[in-house]
Amino acid sequence: MSTVGFFGLGIMGLPMAENLVKAGHDVVGYNRSPRRVEAFVAAGGRGASSIAEAVDGADFVITMVPDSPDVAALAMGEGGIFEHSHRGQLFIDMSTIEPATSRKVAEAGAEVGVRVLDAPVSGGEAGAVEGVLSIMVGGAAEDFAAAKPVFDAVGRTVVHVGPHGAGQTVKAANQLMVAGHLQLLAEALVLAEASDVDPAVAVEVLGGGLAGSTVLERKSAGMLKRDFTPGFRLSLHHKDMGIVTAAAREAGVAIPLGSAVAQLIAALVARGDGGLDHSGLLKLTEELAGRTHQ
Amino acid sequence: MSTVGFFGLGIMGLPMAENLVKAGHDVVGYNRSPRRVEAFVAAGGRGASSIAEAVDGADFVITMVPDSPDVAALAMGEGGIFEHSHRGQLFIDMSTIEPATSRKVAEAGAEVGVRVLDAPVSGGEAGAVEGVLSIMVGGAAEDFAAAKPVFDAVGRTVVHVGPHGAGQTVKAANQLMVAGHLQLLAEALVLAEASDVDPAVAVEVLGGGLAGSTVLERKSAGMLKRDFTPGFRLSLHHKDMGIVTAAAREAGVAIPLGSAVAQLIAALVARGDGGLDHSGLLKLTEELAGRTHQ
Amino acid sequence: MSTVGFFGLGIMGLPMAENLVKAGHDVVGYNRSPRRVEAFVAAGGRGASSIAEAVDGADFVITMVPDSPDVAALAMGEGGIFEHSHRGQLFIDMSTIEPATSRKVAEAGAEVGVRVLDAPVSGGEAGAVEGVLSIMVGGAAEDFAAAKPVFDAVGRTVVHVGPHGAGQTVKAANQLMVAGHLQLLAEALVLAEASDVDPAVAVEVLGGGLAGSTVLERKSAGMLKRDFTPGFRLSLHHKDMGIVTAAAREAGVAIPLGSAVAQLIAALVARGDGGLDHSGLLKLTEELAGRTHQ
Amino acid sequence: MSTVGFFGLGIMGLPMAENLVKAGHDVVGYNRSPRRVEAFVAAGGRGASSIAEAVDGADFVITMVPDSPDVAALAMGEGGIFEHSHRGQLFIDMSTIEPATSRKVAEAGAEVGVRVLDAPVSGGEAGAVEGVLSIMVGGAAEDFAAAKPVFDAVGRTVVHVGPHGAGQTVKAANQLMVAGHLQLLAEALVLAEASDVDPAVAVEVLGGGLAGSTVLERKSAGMLKRDFTPGFRLSLHHKDMGIVTAAAREAGVAIPLGSAVAQLIAALVARGDGGLDHSGLLKLTEELAGRTHQ
Repeated sequence: MSTVGFFGLGIMGLPMAENLVKAGHDVVGYNRSPRRVEAFVAAGGRGASSIAEAVDGADFVITMVPDSPDVAALAMGEGGIFEHSHRGQLFIDMSTIEPATSRKVAEAGAEVGVRVLDAPVSGGEAGAVEGVLSIMVGGAAEDFAAAKPVFDAVGRTVVHVGPHGAGQTVKAANQLMVAGHLQLLAEALVLAEASDVDPAVAVEVLGGGLAGSTVLERKSAGMLKRDFTPGFRLSLHHKDMGIVTAAAREAGVAIPLGSAVAQLIAALVARGDGGLDHSGLLKLTEELAGRTHQ
Repeated sequence: MSTVGFFGLGIMGLPMAENLVKAGHDVVGYNRSPRRVEAFVAAGGRGASSIAEAVDGADFVITMVPDSPDVAALAMGEGGIFEHSHRGQLFIDMSTIEPATSRKVAEAGAEVGVRVLDAPVSGGEAGAVEGVLSIMVGGAAEDFAAAKPVFDAVGRTVVHVGPHGAGQTVKAANQLMVAGHLQLLAEALVLAEASDVDPAVAVEVLGGGLAGSTVLERKSAGMLKRDFTPGFRLSLHHKDMGIVTAAAREAGVAIPLGSAVAQLIAALVARGDGGLDHSGLLKLTEELAGRTHQ
Repeated sequence: MSTVGFFGLGIMGLPMAENLVKAGHDVVGYNRSPRRVEAFVAAGGRGASSIAEAVDGADFVITMVPDSPDVAALAMGEGGIFEHSHRGQLFIDMSTIEPATSRKVAEAGAEVGVRVLDAPVSGGEAGAVEGVLSIMVGGAAEDFAAAKPVFDAVGRTVVHVGPHGAGQTVKAANQLMVAGHLQLLAEALVLAEASDVDPAVAVEVLGGGLAGSTVLERKSAGMLKRDFTPGFRLSLHHKDMGIVTAAAREAGVAIPLGSAVAQLIAALVARGDGGLDHSGLLKLTEELAGRTHQ
Repeated sequence: MSTVGFFGLGIMGLPMAENLVKAGHDVVGYNRSPRRVEAFVAAGGRGASSIAEAVDGADFVITMVPDSPDVAALAMGEGGIFEHSHRGQLFIDMSTIEPATSRKVAEAGAEVGVRVLDAPVSGGEAGAVEGVLSIMVGGAAEDFAAAKPVFDAVGRTVVHVGPHGAGQTVKAANQLMVAGHLQLLAEALVLAEASDVDPAVAVEVLGGGLAGSTVLERKSAGMLKRDFTPGFRLSLHHKDMGIVTAAAREAGVAIPLGSAVAQLIAALVARGDGGLDHSGLLKLTEELAGRTHQ
């Protein structure tokens, strides 16, 4: 079993760290707000009151924080993780951030002898709690192999997808497609309803043919009821579409549909609907058609 | 068994008419170009040399023709089907056309005592040959019930989705979603490749999560090889996106993603790629990223 | 002076017909609802109670009606204008319709020896009343020359832009650009306001540089006050964007921005804002940003 | 007359600095590559070989550098301008960058007693050489007043548009509108040509009505000849659309047309057309319609 320094004990991070503890690892948790550290200690983890304390002597250091600048500052900033790392330590960022930032972090790690993986996850809070996340990993194959036991403690589908940043790229591609599938389903449903077609029947027929999707399987029931309890919040998907847009720009790729749905998500967040599930794209699509659901 | 007048013995219509013959129906085929009628007769059908001949005494009259004006002219035009129909005859249009035209045909049928169903199909040429089409039917429930044996001879999934035009609306929604799913997959693949991620690995990971879709399952292998042999031609999907756009306009529904992908399909057709499979959306997406596949 | 049969005495048609009378022409007006004919007679015109009466012996026949099907039916339909025209009569459609319909009408006219021009106008009700419309004319040069005195009675800028349908194409291009300019100005204004920049100052600066436009000159004052009194109604621009979309599709031209703004206009109309001036695009743009103007 | 430290002697910066010298100011120029400093000295300026040398004792410090991170590093970085500034010095950033960065720089300046203005320009290289730039200034009114003589030496239209960042917001709005106007003109021209309408005639008619724009006046002649010699490069407009997108995101504003044209510009740059004038949007629009200009 290994020693793991874990940064970011939030909605996702706390249950992930707890699953590492359950799997027998020695986990030292750190969080900006100490209340989350207390929760982690109550669940059997060890708490750290400084970055140094969580990094010192750890085999693995994991970060699970909100956005690109958070990872950059935590890993590479003054007094940050890399200043305390020993050579050969394996740093795993499991946050969803820009691929370009992941590559920069990997370069900065290499300069001080730290091995780096980007390993964003999908599966949401439920997946984190149950330890069944999907994990998309970028970096060196041998580092992936070394980290495999750690990933297995928190995820079910764990795939090495390519070099540094590749995990983030695949996560970005995933978020692009999911947002698009949700919006297309929304357009189909509103078109059906506005044409006096029972949308539940439409969903059943559409799901059985080439228009089928996992989004339709898992999200249409809630959408038909206009139950937009998250799930995955629009505000988070908005953040992720920022990453998608930046990744596409960086890679020199035009994403006409991705960019169109990013605008719709931005509008929902601007209107105050950021707390809805991302299937709430239906709400805006309905309003654009002058329709209100009772 | 019933007598069926069948109009439109094209790539889809001919095998459908043949399957009706195989199921024991007495089918009289009519086609503008008589060579297709000969092919049908060679396959065991009866041939008609005039509209009247195919309509007279038939229990069911089926049309399977290219576009809205074709159906309108054939059904309601001077010397058209309705002028020869007897009261109570069941007219089934299985073409993919605008819902508004379907509704007009239904009204015109009602005026002369003809019962009308719109029943567009999906499943392509292969589905037509094997008799496993999906059929989305709009019209009265009792007419749907009466036509069920006919539908069962050519399709596997046969669903009554609502009133007149509803079949076309659901088909339009289907084509909207399929086009969008293809384009989103194309954007994801090009983003992956341009970021040095193996697109085959990306497809595998994306397909296992919330980004999964039937399009990804069935179309990604060909897309990864840039094998755009149809399948379903872009020129046909272009025609269908015209129907989608018209249906949304008629229903007062904005379809931002549908309209964006319609533009991309229009561009491909304008550039001379209308003969490619609709997964050829990848080709344009790649070119927009300044990439060429070897 | 000439004899003119004038069809369509609506908001635009009535003042146009009156200006023809003022210019000394002998004008026979026809309208589906006879009340408008009475108004025209009160203004010094002659009234017709049948199509034949307005067409018989006229040098020019002018139509000013809502949409493509109206022109098609009136000109080419059973009992329509062409059935009453004499050879050499000049038929001028001044409605805004699809270029493809204009070309069909020209062909149908040619078959019965009628010369045809398409001559859509811009300038709105005010331009019609004051006789200062802009007129874009498609058809043969000699027919344009023959009709010039008639055009000069109702318009100020009268340009022969090409063959049959060309007038409609240029009108469509005009409506595409105007819609786009309005929406871009709306996006700029909302971006300014949401960033605490005085939009009136922004308009002044933007208008002085490369971002300047006639839309900005004429429409920004009303937009800053959220005064969306028409002017040109969104419902009419919606109709025109249908023509733009159809014309682009027919010509094999992708119009990514035109199609995007068409969706926004469609949404406004669906929401019940069709009666606002087209500068009301600002209203939707503002709502998409979660902002409401007091 | 004042002492001015000038950073960034590039295509825009060098002629601006020279115009300051001509107006009688004592200008000390600094540039990363010293060759440009030599050029400036040859033109009558003074050269600095360190940041400190250019900042020490200057009344005004001006930066004219490529992008947001350049300004951030130069102003606020270790060993940067603010470390050498005296209290009351006026720092003017004339680069085009994100409004959010301008606001951060202003805050950082305030902490060390430096007054800050953001003052991006438009008018291109020609405007810089002739000293007739348009300058959009954000910051305190009294600082604007103090800097006015400096602005007047390089610009003709100089407007105080609001608080810190407002200059950048208005510049972003400008670039959004200009990109959109170019693309709309391109769509109109390709629609005209594909419909056999002489595009030169179309331009003339469109320019005279509500579709008129400064872009049409200044850019259509080159576009009709497919002369895409810059002018303003697509690669620069691509950078600027990144700023527009970021500014809109930051402000919570959806910009559907802005984001669509940003994708088209990104595609042109990805395809290797970044060196063309931004009116080169016509090239892509033409290719999307399957047309090539001879």
